[in-house]
Amino acid sequence: MSVTILKGTVISAPALGRLDATENGYLIAEDGVIAGVFSALPERYAGAPVEDFGDALILQSFADLHLHAPQYPMLGMGMDLPLLDWLNAYAFPTEARFADPDYAREIYRKLARELAENGTTRVCMFSSLHTDATLILMEELERAGVTGYVGKVNMDRNAAPGILEEDTEESRRETLRWLESCQDFRYVKPILTPRFTPACSDELMDFLGKLGAERNLPVQSHLSENRAEMDWVRQLHPDCGQYWETYAKYGLWNGRTVMAHCVWCDERERQAIRDAGVTVVHCADSNQNLCSGTAPVRVMLNEGIKVALGSDIAGGDHLSMFDVVAASIRASKARRIQDDWQTDFLTVPEGWYLGTSAGAAYFGEAPGFAPGNPLHALVLDDSALPQPHPLTPSERLERCVYRRQKDAVRAVWSAGRKIFSAE
Amino acid sequence: MSVTILKGTVISAPALGRLDATENGYLIAEDGVIAGVFSALPERYAGAPVEDFGDALILQSFADLHLHAPQYPMLGMGMDLPLLDWLNAYAFPTEARFADPDYAREIYRKLARELAENGTTRVCMFSSLHTDATLILMEELERAGVTGYVGKVNMDRNAAPGILEEDTEESRRETLRWLESCQDFRYVKPILTPRFTPACSDELMDFLGKLGAERNLPVQSHLSENRAEMDWVRQLHPDCGQYWETYAKYGLWNGRTVMAHCVWCDERERQAIRDAGVTVVHCADSNQNLCSGTAPVRVMLNEGIKVALGSDIAGGDHLSMFDVVAASIRASKARRIQDDWQTDFLTVPEGWYLGTSAGAAYFGEAPGFAPGNPLHALVLDDSALPQPHPLTPSERLERCVYRRQKDAVRAVWSAGRKIFSAE
Repeated sequence: MSVTILKGTVISAPALGRLDATENGYLIAEDGVIAGVFSALPERYAGAPVEDFGDALILQSFADLHLHAPQYPMLGMGMDLPLLDWLNAYAFPTEARFADPDYAREIYRKLARELAENGTTRVCMFSSLHTDATLILMEELERAGVTGYVGKVNMDRNAAPGILEEDTEESRRETLRWLESCQDFRYVKPILTPRFTPACSDELMDFLGKLGAERNLPVQSHLSENRAEMDWVRQLHPDCGQYWETYAKYGLWNGRTVMAHCVWCDERERQAIRDAGVTVVHCADSNQNLCSGTAPVRVMLNEGIKVALGSDIAGGDHLSMFDVVAASIRASKARRIQDDWQTDFLTVPEGWYLGTSAGAAYFGEAPGFAPGNPLHALVLDDSALPQPHPLTPSERLERCVYRRQKDAVRAVWSAGRKIFSAE
Repeated sequence: MSVTILKGTVISAPALGRLDATENGYLIAEDGVIAGVFSALPERYAGAPVEDFGDALILQSFADLHLHAPQYPMLGMGMDLPLLDWLNAYAFPTEARFADPDYAREIYRKLARELAENGTTRVCMFSSLHTDATLILMEELERAGVTGYVGKVNMDRNAAPGILEEDTEESRRETLRWLESCQDFRYVKPILTPRFTPACSDELMDFLGKLGAERNLPVQSHLSENRAEMDWVRQLHPDCGQYWETYAKYGLWNGRTVMAHCVWCDERERQAIRDAGVTVVHCADSNQNLCSGTAPVRVMLNEGIKVALGSDIAGGDHLSMFDVVAASIRASKARRIQDDWQTDFLTVPEGWYLGTSAGAAYFGEAPGFAPGNPLHALVLDDSALPQPHPLTPSERLERCVYRRQKDAVRAVWSAGRKIFSAE
């Protein structure tokens, strides 16, 4: 049995709004699975090697439940445009370049490394429609030690003619080829990925729904992000009362479904989300950058809906989940202001929970550093920041959320493996 | 005569919403004063040394028109609290430490250096109430090459008893001592700084108004930031119909006045701002962090009000004005959403203008790299960022606003002097 023992100021989020801190604590894993957090080294580990990080923070690593890998090269561009124009002017041409496997290799290697270095160890990720590039992406994530789900995108209508399109038959065939080819990855698994309803014919949706049921595959897509998009869905699906029904109709709506955005879901749509156990991925920066709206995260949480966070690069402009957590808190304050102070904002402990435990829950983990979870952790050095007064562990964490510090992540573990070390 | 010739991709903001770009351009200053931007080197400079930055961006440096120097050590802390609680729990105790000149020296030296390295070359800055620390701050800014105004804070009522308070007589006496002692600084000048109306007695305000008129001093303070604060002002000043009148009444309201926030100014208050030529400092991050509200920047700009930007550390949590420009754009999108899409957001060129030309206007500069302006410029290297397609100069600038790149600022000039070089 291999034992990992990390010593430092251990902080975890065992419940929404709660932070547990153990100063001079020990986070211990056996064979990559968490045994517990201890304030003194238990007898049974005496003599085992301890990685002592002194006073540094030992934190849960992040789960990023929505991002578009092929949009990574255009991070921070085109933000003066609304969603549908931005897709056509920037996103689609950028994705089209991933027809070239060499380009895909170069970009995806860099992306995978940057995720690992920033402590994002679990993802739900969109690739492009290109099967080969998708396999390369999965390979590079696997190599970098990032775990989670990656989807070859399906889009057989309303695509970008001549540069980024597939017909229904091709989409089906390539999806099957992709699923055949990605069976050997250990930590990176496939997820069905209809781009969004406007981009997928009924025939394709029907195929994907049946395939998902047959092979027990999870599903990711977009829901109610933008009002123009929703009008479009209504025109395309006069048979469906609400956007979510265009997924549910084809069996793409269940407890393993991840839906990004959900900015405009009304009470009925939220009820459908809760009833099915769908996970909502809040993408605060993206929604603000593209002027989509400000999602009612507090309301969804109060209603018992599962909400996690996504960087949504490149609608969002930050890959680091420290930034994404801070952006979610800021967006919740914008929403509070918009709601005339009638809704509460997300506190730092709440935002932190959403970026870590809530996302990890989608992968079957219990909240916090719970025994039995695979070890997903990062070590953060905040010693370069001044201390105006002696800070509590929670204050230190709060400051790290707001103050993005380059190179402050010193080490990262993913599914028990040390995947990054600044040494 | 000394000539400075900078070669690169020169971008400037000569008007709100407009960017002028000259690729392979020359930005030229004579004796520290801009002569112009040229697409070829004019004959008369033949043989003069050229600093060639290749393809790098040569940009106007920033003006940060509102920040609290003594809150620098607490950047990113206490953000779950509303303004007045945050002041008592965090800001006042942190400021109180500046009674110690050694501490002030250490912190202010670091702050001044960080401003210079981030390309902020003009400031309107609050110190604390401590005269000696204020003089140290001015010295350190002068030494680092940062220009602008610094104010010893006046606060003789509703302060923090026992840790941060001065009585009226002390406030008067120390203000005079400070003004006597800071006459030899060349680039850093004094600005009268009543903290905000609730913190200054009528007697003190009267003194400051007369002093300002007598010595022709500019004024900075806070206005209509938060609704609880405004209620408080109304209780303290039943004689004044609106918050601005509590400054105007004492002669602290004119074309050299800078007022931070102005989140809640209604039409009448905005009219008073415009009529007097007061400069509004928009502090987007701070207003959002403290849940104060979202200032109607677009409306103020449409009405012809002078609006510049402030980092407002430590209500704001970023010192870099790249971040502050991005935050202002995001806030304008939150405001657009709040206004049900009836107001326009700030485009990147508009946000850039506010962070550079609009702030520089307060110091008497014409917009952009106008001939006659003192040379305030920075060189930004964006070569580490991928190019998904060949980018225009404007696209490159836009991306740099969103993607904070550590160490991308390669050199900075302030009032004609090169104050930072990464070499």
